[in-house]
This record gives sequence, C-alpha cells and structure tokens, in this order.
Amino acid sequence: MRTGVPEIILAEGKDPEDLAKIVMKALEKSGRAIISRVKSYHAEAIKKIIPSSTSVQINKKARMIVINKEDFVIEKTGGKVGIITAGTSDIPVAEEAKIIAEEMGCEVFTAYDVGVAGIHRLFPSLKEMIERNVDVLIVVAGREGTLPSVVAGMVDIPVIGVPTSIGYGLGEKGISALTAMLQACSLGLVVVNIDGGVAAGAVAALIANRVVKARGTK
Amino acid sequence: MRTGVPEIILAEGKDPEDLAKIVMKALEKSGRAIISRVKSYHAEAIKKIIPSSTSVQINKKARMIVINKEDFVIEKTGGKVGIITAGTSDIPVAEEAKIIAEEMGCEVFTAYDVGVAGIHRLFPSLKEMIERNVDVLIVVAGREGTLPSVVAGMVDIPVIGVPTSIGYGLGEKGISALTAMLQACSLGLVVVNIDGGVAAGAVAALIANRVVKARGTK
Amino acid sequence: MRTGVPEIILAEGKDPEDLAKIVMKALEKSGRAIISRVKSYHAEAIKKIIPSSTSVQINKKARMIVINKEDFVIEKTGGKVGIITAGTSDIPVAEEAKIIAEEMGCEVFTAYDVGVAGIHRLFPSLKEMIERNVDVLIVVAGREGTLPSVVAGMVDIPVIGVPTSIGYGLGEKGISALTAMLQACSLGLVVVNIDGGVAAGAVAALIANRVVKARGTK
Amino acid sequence: MRTGVPEIILAEGKDPEDLAKIVMKALEKSGRAIISRVKSYHAEAIKKIIPSSTSVQINKKARMIVINKEDFVIEKTGGKVGIITAGTSDIPVAEEAKIIAEEMGCEVFTAYDVGVAGIHRLFPSLKEMIERNVDVLIVVAGREGTLPSVVAGMVDIPVIGVPTSIGYGLGEKGISALTAMLQACSLGLVVVNIDGGVAAGAVAALIANRVVKARGTK
Amino acid sequence: MRTGVPEIILAEGKDPEDLAKIVMKALEKSGRAIISRVKSYHAEAIKKIIPSSTSVQINKKARMIVINKEDFVIEKTGGKVGIITAGTSDIPVAEEAKIIAEEMGCEVFTAYDVGVAGIHRLFPSLKEMIERNVDVLIVVAGREGTLPSVVAGMVDIPVIGVPTSIGYGLGEKGISALTAMLQACSLGLVVVNIDGGVAAGAVAALIANRVVKARGTK
Amino acid sequence: MRTGVPEIILAEGKDPEDLAKIVMKALEKSGRAIISRVKSYHAEAIKKIIPSSTSVQINKKARMIVINKEDFVIEKTGGKVGIITAGTSDIPVAEEAKIIAEEMGCEVFTAYDVGVAGIHRLFPSLKEMIERNVDVLIVVAGREGTLPSVVAGMVDIPVIGVPTSIGYGLGEKGISALTAMLQACSLGLVVVNIDGGVAAGAVAALIANRVVKARGTK
Amino acid sequence: MRTGVPEIILAEGKDPEDLAKIVMKALEKSGRAIISRVKSYHAEAIKKIIPSSTSVQINKKARMIVINKEDFVIEKTGGKVGIITAGTSDIPVAEEAKIIAEEMGCEVFTAYDVGVAGIHRLFPSLKEMIERNVDVLIVVAGREGTLPSVVAGMVDIPVIGVPTSIGYGLGEKGISALTAMLQACSLGLVVVNIDGGVAAGAVAALIANRVVKARGTK
Amino acid sequence: MRTGVPEIILAEGKDPEDLAKIVMKALEKSGRAIISRVKSYHAEAIKKIIPSSTSVQINKKARMIVINKEDFVIEKTGGKVGIITAGTSDIPVAEEAKIIAEEMGCEVFTAYDVGVAGIHRLFPSLKEMIERNVDVLIVVAGREGTLPSVVAGMVDIPVIGVPTSIGYGLGEKGISALTAMLQACSLGLVVVNIDGGVAAGAVAALIANRVVKARGTK
Repeated sequence: MRTGVPEIILAEGKDPEDLAKIVMKALEKSGRAIISRVKSYHAEAIKKIIPSSTSVQINKKARMIVINKEDFVIEKTGGKVGIITAGTSDIPVAEEAKIIAEEMGCEVFTAYDVGVAGIHRLFPSLKEMIERNVDVLIVVAGREGTLPSVVAGMVDIPVIGVPTSIGYGLGEKGISALTAMLQACSLGLVVVNIDGGVAAGAVAALIANRVVKARGTK
Repeated sequence: MRTGVPEIILAEGKDPEDLAKIVMKALEKSGRAIISRVKSYHAEAIKKIIPSSTSVQINKKARMIVINKEDFVIEKTGGKVGIITAGTSDIPVAEEAKIIAEEMGCEVFTAYDVGVAGIHRLFPSLKEMIERNVDVLIVVAGREGTLPSVVAGMVDIPVIGVPTSIGYGLGEKGISALTAMLQACSLGLVVVNIDGGVAAGAVAALIANRVVKARGTK
Repeated sequence: MRTGVPEIILAEGKDPEDLAKIVMKALEKSGRAIISRVKSYHAEAIKKIIPSSTSVQINKKARMIVINKEDFVIEKTGGKVGIITAGTSDIPVAEEAKIIAEEMGCEVFTAYDVGVAGIHRLFPSLKEMIERNVDVLIVVAGREGTLPSVVAGMVDIPVIGVPTSIGYGLGEKGISALTAMLQACSLGLVVVNIDGGVAAGAVAALIANRVVKARGTK
Repeated sequence: MRTGVPEIILAEGKDPEDLAKIVMKALEKSGRAIISRVKSYHAEAIKKIIPSSTSVQINKKARMIVINKEDFVIEKTGGKVGIITAGTSDIPVAEEAKIIAEEMGCEVFTAYDVGVAGIHRLFPSLKEMIERNVDVLIVVAGREGTLPSVVAGMVDIPVIGVPTSIGYGLGEKGISALTAMLQACSLGLVVVNIDGGVAAGAVAALIANRVVKARGTK
Repeated sequence: MRTGVPEIILAEGKDPEDLAKIVMKALEKSGRAIISRVKSYHAEAIKKIIPSSTSVQINKKARMIVINKEDFVIEKTGGKVGIITAGTSDIPVAEEAKIIAEEMGCEVFTAYDVGVAGIHRLFPSLKEMIERNVDVLIVVAGREGTLPSVVAGMVDIPVIGVPTSIGYGLGEKGISALTAMLQACSLGLVVVNIDGGVAAGAVAALIANRVVKARGTK
Repeated sequence: MRTGVPEIILAEGKDPEDLAKIVMKALEKSGRAIISRVKSYHAEAIKKIIPSSTSVQINKKARMIVINKEDFVIEKTGGKVGIITAGTSDIPVAEEAKIIAEEMGCEVFTAYDVGVAGIHRLFPSLKEMIERNVDVLIVVAGREGTLPSVVAGMVDIPVIGVPTSIGYGLGEKGISALTAMLQACSLGLVVVNIDGGVAAGAVAALIANRVVKARGTK
Repeated sequence: MRTGVPEIILAEGKDPEDLAKIVMKALEKSGRAIISRVKSYHAEAIKKIIPSSTSVQINKKARMIVINKEDFVIEKTGGKVGIITAGTSDIPVAEEAKIIAEEMGCEVFTAYDVGVAGIHRLFPSLKEMIERNVDVLIVVAGREGTLPSVVAGMVDIPVIGVPTSIGYGLGEKGISALTAMLQACSLGLVVVNIDGGVAAGAVAALIANRVVKARGTK
Repeated sequence: MRTGVPEIILAEGKDPEDLAKIVMKALEKSGRAIISRVKSYHAEAIKKIIPSSTSVQINKKARMIVINKEDFVIEKTGGKVGIITAGTSDIPVAEEAKIIAEEMGCEVFTAYDVGVAGIHRLFPSLKEMIERNVDVLIVVAGREGTLPSVVAGMVDIPVIGVPTSIGYGLGEKGISALTAMLQACSLGLVVVNIDGGVAAGAVAALIANRVVKARGTK
C-alpha cells in the first residue's frame, strides 16, 4: 500500500451530508481531512459535524478546507517546491497546489503574476527559486498557456504545467492553454488537467520528497 | 472596384485542365497569374498551355507559381514587411507570404528558425527589422504557437500570426497554434487561418502599402 | 520596451478586491486605468478605492471603465479607424474596440447594424468611411459572420474581422462566425478571437497610428 | 409506397462485386440504375456484369453512372431547378445534383463559378434563372459558404444550400460552410450535408415536381 | 427586392430598449412586427412602447410575439403546411414554425407527439395530412432525431427536418438529432439548424406559396 | 479468473513478426488463436510460422483469421444470437460479431441489408428471429444509425447497437450513428464503439450463454 | 407489441402542466407512472393532479417518482441485477437504474463507492454478487471511467457501463468516461449514454428476465 | 543557459536536405545528434552527409537515430527510470522514451505488455522496479489508457503517463487515453501529449538526475 500521498476529498458533486460523513471517516482514520472544491453549503455541513477540538483551516481562494485532529503533525520532509503563476486569475489554482504540497511536508515558494503582463518579474523570481534549490516547479497559466513552456526552456529541473480555465472564444475554458502545454517544444514539461491544482501539488511533492529521501540515504 | 490585391488562384482541389484555363484567362486579363498550393500535375498542365514568351517562376518550397507576360512589371511601393518563423518546418508557409507581399510591391525581410530552439537569435533579428523600419511583422509558428504573442509583446507595429499545421496529438494540425494566437494576452496581434501564408502576405502588404501611400501624400 | 499600446485590465475572473488594487497600481504608474469585461461588483469595488479627483467614464454597453488622473491627456494621433457591425447585438463588442482605439489616440467612425438585414445601408456607410480616409476597418459580426469577408472584397485597406458569440445550434457561441472569417475567400482580412473587441481596437490603432506616423515623417 | 424518388445506389464503401449485383437487381426491378460516388474499380465491376443492350452514361466529374434498359424513358415533369456554384471546385457536387434532378424529370439550369471571385456574374445569372421561372435554387459553396445565404436574401423561392468539403485549417472539410449555412440570417434557406449533391438534387426535384403537379391540376 | 418573407426580429441577445425601438420601426414600415425568442423583460419593454390600438398576440410556448397595426391583414395564399413533432418537448419549436407559416399566409396542420412513444399515431396523422394535400412537411425531433428520415421515406413531398436541443450526454443540445438528419438515407429531406423553427416555417411557406402560385397561374 | 471469453488478438497496429509470435503463444496456451483486423502482410507473417497441422480459417470480409489446433473443438452452448444489418456496407462488422459469437459456442442467425432501403424485409426477418427464440439481437448500422433504436422498440430481448464508420460530412466515421444510438428513446438498447463487431459478438454470446446455462440449471 | 419494458416518462424539458397530464394518462392506461429527471416544480404539478388513493414514491437522489394505482402489483420475475459505483457522486445515476430494474420485477444488489478510492472493497463486493448469482452487472463511473472495464475483465456475465457526468477539464461532463468505456480492451462490456441510469436499468432487467424465463422454461 | 537536456531534432515535417544540415550543425556543436520520427528518406539524406568516423545507431521501432562523434561519451548519472507499456503496440513510443533517458545518462528498466491482457504480469514487474529503486515510472498506454492511473495508485514515486494513438471509433488516435489520464482519480500522475515518448523520456531523466544529484550532494 502506498503511503506517500494523503487522501484528498473532492467536495464537488457531493451531497453535503454525504461529504460530512466522508470527512469524519477520514478524520478518524488518518487524523486529517483535506477537502477541495468546497462550496459554502459544503463548509457548513462539515462545520456542524466536526468536533470542536479539531483545527479547521479554510483557504477561500483555493476553495479548500484542511482539518486536523489535535495531535496531528505534518512531518517536514525538506522537499522544496516552487509555484509560479502567469496572472492573478491563476492564483486560486496555485493555492490548491501549495496546500497539497505543504500537507505532504514540503516547503513551498511562490511567485504570482509574473507572466506576460509582468515578464520583467519572471527572471528574478526564477533566479531566486533556483538559488533556493527548489526540486520542481509548478507553472500555472490560462489563455494561451505560454509560461510553462518558456520556463521549461530555461531551467534544468522538471516543470509541471497547470492550465487554468481562463480565456474566451475559441480555446476557452483552458482548452487552449492545455493544448499549448501538450504541444510545447521545450522538453522538461509535463501537464495535469485544466485547473488541476491538487494533482500538480501532489506530484510535485512526490518528486521533491523523492529527491530529499535520496539526499538523506545517499 | 478594389485594385490593391491581385487575384491569387488556388490550385488545390482544381482539375488540372480547369486550372490551366483559369490561369490563361488571368494572364490575359491582368498580365500575371499567381497560383498557390500547386501539385506537380497542376504545374505540368500549366506548362503545356502557356505561351513560351511568358516568364514562369516556380517556388517549390512555397508550392507557388508566378507567371508574368513579358511586359508585366511589379510597381515597387516602398512598403516593408518582416517575416519571422519559429522553426524550419514553418518556412514553406512563410515563403508563400513573402511571394504575395513582393508581388504586391513590398520589400520583404526574413528571419527563419528563430523560435524556441533559437530564441537567442530572435532579439537581434527583431532589432534589425525594427531598424529597417518594417511596417508590419508576419510571425509564422506551429505546435504551441507562442512566438507571435511573444513578438507582439515587444514591438509597436502590428503583428500577423500565422499558425502552421505542425504538431502532434491533442491540438495537432495547427489547432493548438491557432487557439494560442487567438487567446494571446499580448495586444497588437491578429491571425489568419492555419497555413494561411497567402492571406497573411496580402494583408501585410495592404498595411505596408497604406503606410507608404500616407508617407507619400503627407 | 513597447509604448504604443496601453495596458488593458481584464476584470473577468478577477476577485473585486484584487482588481481594485491592480487598478490603483495602473493609475499610479501611467495616470490611466482601462478595465474591460467589468461586472457590477467589480465597478463597486473600484469606486470605493479610487480618489475623488479622478475622472471615471463607464460604458455600460461595452462593459468598460476608463479612469484618468486629472492631468492625464490622450494625445490625438490623427489615426482613423472605421467600425462596422452586422447587427445590433454586435454593438457591445464594437464599442469595446472603439474605446480602445480612442484611448490610443485615434478618431473612430462607426456604422452599426448595416449587415444582412440592412445591406442597403452598407454601401453608403462604406463609401463615407473611405471618403473620410480611414486607415483600417473593424467589421463585427455573429452567426454566419459573412460581413467582414464581403467588406474585405470591396476595399483596399486592411479589414479586421471580429466574430461575436451570437447564434444558435451548430456553430453557436461565435464558432461559425470565426471559422467563416478564417475561411474567407477575400484577401485582406485578418481576425481576432470571438468577442475580441479589445484586441481588434488595439491592433487597428497600431495600424492607423503607424500610417499617421509615416505621414508625418515622410 | 412512395414513387417520387428513384433509388440511388451509393457505391462508396461497397465491395465491387456486391455493388454489381445490387445494380443488376435495380436494373431488373425498375429499368434503371443510378450509382453515385463511383470509383474506377466499381465502374469496371459494373461494366462486366451489365448486358450490352443497356445504355450507360458516365459522368466523371460527378462520379456517377446512370444505366437504362432500352425501353426506359424519363418522363419530363416540367419542373425547373436552378443550380449555382461559388467556385469551380464545387462543380462535381453540383453535377451530382443536376443528374438526380434530371433523372427525376426536371429541367436544370446551371451557373457555375459565380461566387466571390466572380460576384459580378452572380446578378445576371440569378436574374436569368428567375426569368426562366425556376421553382427552386440549389446553391453549392465551400470555404466560408456565404453564397447560399446571399442568394436566399435576394429571391422569393426556396434555396437549398450545399456545403462542399473545400477549405483548409479551422473549419476545413466543409464544416465552416455547413455551419455558416445553418447560421444564416437570411430566411428561405435549408441545407443538406457536406458534399450532399444527391440529397439536394432529390429534394429540389420533389419541390419542383410538386409545383408542376399543382400547376397542372389547378 | 424580395417580398415573400416578412422580417422576423430576433429578441435574443438584444437590449430590451434597443429591441423596442426596432419593433416600432418595423411596425411603422410594414404594419406588423414578428418577434422571436422573447424573454419576459423583452415583452415588457415592448408593451411599454407600442400604441394601444395595435393588436398584440403572445404565444408563450413559442416565445413569440406578433404585433399588427389595426389595418394589417394577412393575405391567405392557400398554401398548406403540415407540422409533426416526435415528442411533447418539441412543441415550442413547432409552434414557432406554425406562426411564421401562418403569418406568410399558409394554412397549417399539426400532429404533435407522434414519434417513438406514439408511433401508432404517426401513420393516421401522416395519412390525414397527405389527404389534406399539404405541400410540404416540417418534422421536429430531438434526441436521436429519427422521425424526419422515417417520414421522408414514406411521402412524395419535401420534408424539412428541425432538430431540437433535447437530449443528454454525447450528442446533447441537438447535435445528435442534427447529424442524424444530415446523414439520413432517405432522400427528400433537408434541414435547418437546431431549434430553427422560424427558419423552417419560412422556407416551408415559400415552398407552399410557390406551389399555390403555380396552381393559380397554370 | 474468467473463462467465458476467449482472447482475441488485435492485428491492427502490430508489427507482423510480433503478431506471429503472439499468435503462436495463444495457440500453444489455448489450442486456438482468433485474430481480428488482419491486413494481408499480417496474414502472410502468420502463415509462415504456424505448423501445417493446424486449421486456418480466413474470413476476408470480416478481416479475421481463426486458427485451431487439430484437437480443438468448440463446445456448442445452445445460445442463440441474431444479427441484423441496415445496409450491405455494414456486413463486414456483422461478420466479425458472428465469428466471435460462434467461437463462443453460440448459434448465429443473420439478416443483412434490411434497413431503410429494405424496411419491408425487416419485419419478416425480425419475426423469424423471435420465432427461433434468439436470446439477444445485434443490430449494425451506419449513417443516421436508426435501425437499432427501431428494433429495440419492437422486441422484448436486449439489443446491442453497433455503429459503423459509414457516412459523410458532419457526423461521418460513425459519429452520427453512435450518438443516435446513445440518444435512442427506445429502452432496451446498449452500444459498443464504432465498428465494434468483436465487442458486440462477445457480449452477445455472454448474454446468450448465460441464458442457456440458466435454462440448463433451472 | 412489446410488453417487457414499462414506459418511462422523462420530466426534463417538459412543461409541468403537460407533464402532469401525461402522468395521468399513463396511470390510467397501465396503473403505474414512472417519471425520471424530476425537478421540484414538476413534482408539485404532479401532486396537484393525482388522486389521493394512489401511492407515490419519491426518490430524491435518483430524481425519480413512481406512482401506483392501489391495485398495481409488480410481478417479481426472479431476475437478479448487480449495481456497482466507483464513487459516491455516481450514486444518483445508480439509483435510477435500481428503480427501473425493480419496477421491471428484478431483485437488485448494490455496492456503492468501491472504485479507485476503495478498490480493496471491490473484490469482496464482486465476489458476493457472483455468489448471489446476479445475471448482469451495471457499473457506474465518472472521470476516467475505468471501473467497468476492470470489472468486465474479471467476470463471465455481461457488464453494462454507465458513464457519469463527473470530472473536470478536458473530457469533462462524462465524455472521458464514455470514451474510455467504448475503448475498453476487456470484452464483455456494453455502454449507455452519459448519466443513462434509466437505459441501463431497463436493459439489465431485460437480460435478467430473459435468463429467468429461460430458467423457468428449461 | 540550461544544460540538462540535449537538443532533440524532430525529423517529421522537415525536408531531408534541411534535416541533414541541421544534424551536421548539431554534431559539430555538441558531438552528438539525436533525431526522432525519422522516415527512410530522412535516414538516407543523413547517411550521405555524415563523416564515416561517427557512430550511427538506428532504432527502427522507435524511429530514432543517434549519431555520436568518436570522442563523445555519455556521462552515467546513476538516475534510474522504469518504463512500462500496456500492450505491444505501445512499445515504439516506450523505446523513444528509453533512448532519450539513456542519452541523458540514466539507467532504464522496461516491462512491456503488462496491461489488461497481462495484468498478472504487472505486479511482479512493478515490484521488481520498486526493488531496483527506480526514481520515476513512465507508463505508456493506448485505447482506454487505464494503466498509468492504476500504477499511480500503487506506488509512491511520480508516474508519467504517455497516451498512444492506439484505438478506434470515438476517442481514437489517443484522445480517449489522454483524457482518461488527465481525469485520473489517482494522485501522482502527470501526462505528456499523445505518442510523446521523447517528452516523457526527457522529463523522467530530469527527475531521476535531480534525485541522483541530491543523493550525491547530501
């Protein structure tokens, strides 16, 4: 059985009562429940059912809730993940990834809104991340989805592209960004589905933690 | 009646004999015939029918034929068009554009294969074109189609993006490049259809010639 | 660094508070903020934060807001842009283009609802625009998107087609209009994405301003 | 049982031997066999099997074969059908329609290549057809598929649009032409599938023959 | 200029005030205004502006409004149109077609909900329509869109298929019904776009009126 | 481990040498090899490698090869499967299904070409199949794919629809037929993928054999 | 006439009043009305019209209503159907299938949420179902839609895959699940449309009842 | 400048002579040329131009050529990559990935054809790879594309899914496999484009080499 990735509960499409029960079961089993794509009625159903001694962190932008039992402690792995977004509209998806990677024990560095409108901010941000020795980069972008390919062409660490459902007209809903990342000429780039912050955070942490474990074992 | 754009004869999908007749009619009417997307059997049917005194120029890469009657002279307009391609596979489409713009009287400057694999060659090429005072840029790119957006973000003249049918998997046949250009965050970019070298060349020449005419009239 | 195109802030998909901050930053940097695709909650967040001395123009049809610091003055370039719509439903997109072109210093002439239902109004409108010596035409159309191709076949200046998300059934949401414009037999036509009024206005102004600059410099 | 439409045998996708048997059966049953989308190996298989006394007409452009037993006579109905094409590449599909309408007893008038490149030829052609009192118009067009909508906006008889698989890039293979015709603002237009010459010819003849029958009965 | 088809005003996508003005203009010009795809706020804006002496008919199912000046009279042409629907959900689209055909002077016969669930009701309905001597049939169907093809295989008059946006999953929103009608093996069938009741009614009336005129003139 | 379905080897996309080895391995393991979508170069590679004592049956229409070791005997189950096709072009796919069902021990009854063109032949065919007490029906159809839905509306046994890649224009390659079957109003219909004769034959035999087993055990 | 499948009334897209009338007619004709995809306003319209002596069962999850006249009794057939879902979000569709199968006289066994997140629960669930001797399995899954293929590879009874409209980004709305099931390598799997619980329940009951009837007759 | 990924020359779409020149330039610059998607005419053009002292390795399955100057030596990094395929048709894409990873200094372990048809071979293969301590897994699969998701659910290292263009009907050409991988419920999975062996090999090597570097530096 795998142990490296915590269970993430997807609230979307779930009945609030069903969700609350699933959350309680997860809390009991592992001491923690991580819930994504939470709507307000989900949050209320959850609040009603959880015991008062638990710690509840709500990240509105990321639409996520993390609940810990008192004695639950995240073990810091030493893994380092960098997260970059092209625009401000991409931040919610980036925050999803950040929470997952942190819950998997990684240290996360972020640089938001460094894309086309702020390309002059890209180079210093990238440089700082490389100097901090991040093991992997998550690059979040919508519309034409150029940034991940540009970044992958400049660094020697793996890059995970996350297309976001930003954009309009032909290629809207992230389709253009996704296909652009899949077609990228730059080698070193892999992708997850549109708005897939959770998926990106999990795999980034797996990579970073693998690196760290290797570092430890030599 | 418009006079600024010559008639371009599309060979694709035409019966060779029908095509040859259309070419002859164009020659007689205007002293010139420009034929695009020519296959070898088209070329042979045309050669059989045209009189020996005409000048025939064949551009194999561009799959184009230009036929002039002895006394046909292109009037140089002074318009200046720059053409850039991301890769070597994009050159045939760029050549199509070049021929059209030249037949419309413009001077054309080219910089091929300056995209992702050769990004260090982009800046000097662009600089040279700006210094040469080109009135408009055509940027040809396939796969993720990033280059036109990047270029449009760096210059103050209009940029015409031409997606090419290069690429594979999701977004293949130029769909990814086209949608990326349509979604581009950089303002100053317009597009033509996939592999639309002829369309790009014609509109670029219209823009450049308009500028030149203005220059003349003051 | 390019200077010819002002920064346009896209409100769509942005958190109102984030948007307001971005607007303030733009105001401080350049003395002006142009915001597109504004919803009412965006407008309210902006109104709360901007100083009373600024001039705020709201164009409801175009869903745009333009904010100027007291001392901000648009420099008239002398560039001339014509804008035509096929129907009345296309007007909001046309207005977007108009505002951008005006903010870039151009004079804009409009002729709305001259398409299929009012084709007899097309010819006099076009004639007037040509006589006024516009440098470029923006033609906005939904459904079968015929008008830009028809216009491009009749004039010797560049035409920018803007498909709108009008229509129903197969090809709805502007897909039919976009593909029709991309497939157009008439040379001299380029396109922007569906509902891309901002993109069309910016590139039209670039073309017109280029012409004017040439006129001045000789 | 319906009697107004003859059976048309679609050769495409059929084994030559199977096809030949089907043709023989049709010949015996009705004295006539009409075969569409014929490839050369189909034609050869058919020639081998049919008796020498039958009349075989092959229309290469239309890729059709019509075989009549000696005593088979088409009854002229007096119905009149007009067929127009936008370009020369649309002629094979138009010819398909023409053969079907003629085999159903109608008189057919054609005007080919009167579209965008030859719009000045459209008006006299249309005028002539109206004066000849055609009961219905078939308009065949590829690429942006504008012509049927334009024609439908100018006449008071029903128009059948036939998109052809001409075109390139986004909307290629007739998709753009089909959607444009379906989205047409002009009322009075119906469509058949891409390259559907047979379908258009049959329904046009049904309309024209209905009119004629009415004329007779009063 | 064509006179056979009245102008139909599409409310969808129009600003209520703009719409009301267009309606008034139509009323003044032709004594009648026909408005389709009307929402309640459209209806209210119209009611406010029209003079009390006009006759206003609202068909809620069809989402249409017809407004006549006192002295406006529809001239009965004697044309006969039959309309059939597969299910009850297809009735609104059928009603749209009915109103248009009636406003164009035709007599309309309807048979609703005679499709799959009530196939035993199809034969008597069809028989009655043929006996009443209708000139053309409109067949409205969603989901798999079978009915138009079935009907076209049984009658000798033209059939206009109207796909409706009924259905779910793959092929939803009428795409399945539309493609099925376009692919139909039965000759004698033409189609209009999804939910295209107005388009179907107009062309059906054109056909029926043409027949009738022929009948009169002999 | 399941035992009810034999392994079917898909030749398509396989290297001939690789295929031959896989075939030999299957022969040795189970005494039989069933190979589908065989091209001529596949067949030759297989013939070279198999021992002379094996029985090789080639069905060209179905593009299938069945190879049995001398002592291999199909156990007749008593299951009964009916297979119907709409047209003659659908026969290859029907034959694929027939071979699979027979190799799984079932008795198969067929009625080919009973669709639209021969609907009068459908009822007697269906009646005969019901009288023979078939347990399940496979109905194969292309283009508008109506037949499976029609049949499912008339029988009380399960119907498996198989769309075929017959057709043209919008919905070509079986897409129209597949969506029509998925949208079918008739209950009692399930589908397999386009041209999925093998899949249909296998599941039909599973159903029939299940019925038979039940019959035996009571 | 078929008798094996009850009529199911689809509420979706129906006017509440129309629906209520259809329900009453069904009640009178067959003593039972089964209504699917019911919205609250549908339910209210129905409640108003039905007589107090009828039994009304509402299944909110399945969005279904079943109404029986006092004397209506479902005849138990002895058929056995197993239903499995991959996740909790798939349960509403599974419940739809369950109700239909039960209304057709079958006994239904369910195992919900045994997919990826709970794969360890799949094997015991499947084992139990096989031991209970179910005749057919319905497997409901969204997103990547893997479960039906996995199950079909492990059992010797027919499996009906039901894709659900769960998922996000590319392949959302069940498209990914549907295509995965259609592409499945495992033989023994057939599919219905996305969210097609009713269709799956009906065909499963047809299969199970067929088996049972065979068992009885021997 | 990045140094971790060698330049890969894509032969597809390139003129043989152009390709040969690009290859020579790469050889001179870096002592090595890696060429993918090579056709036989490409190979011949290359053979003509390269000096005899270079080592040329051709992998026909992978359609790749690697050319080294005499003194070129790959530096072994110690990175370990595992590659798994679902079927035999997926092997060419896997071989592409293998060559790239080896050229980037990694040790590669492969297990081919362990998917659905040979699932019993999956577990021992995976176990062996984990015991060999591979840093990352590449999983190649076509059709329903299930394997990468299944594998990602069982291991604690990152998994790169590569969809292949295997399959038929709806979702063919790898679209089904790609969407299934993007929709995967298992966390720990990222994807590259269809048939993207080169992209997968490069990013896998980047991950493995990063791990190894960490191991060395501690």
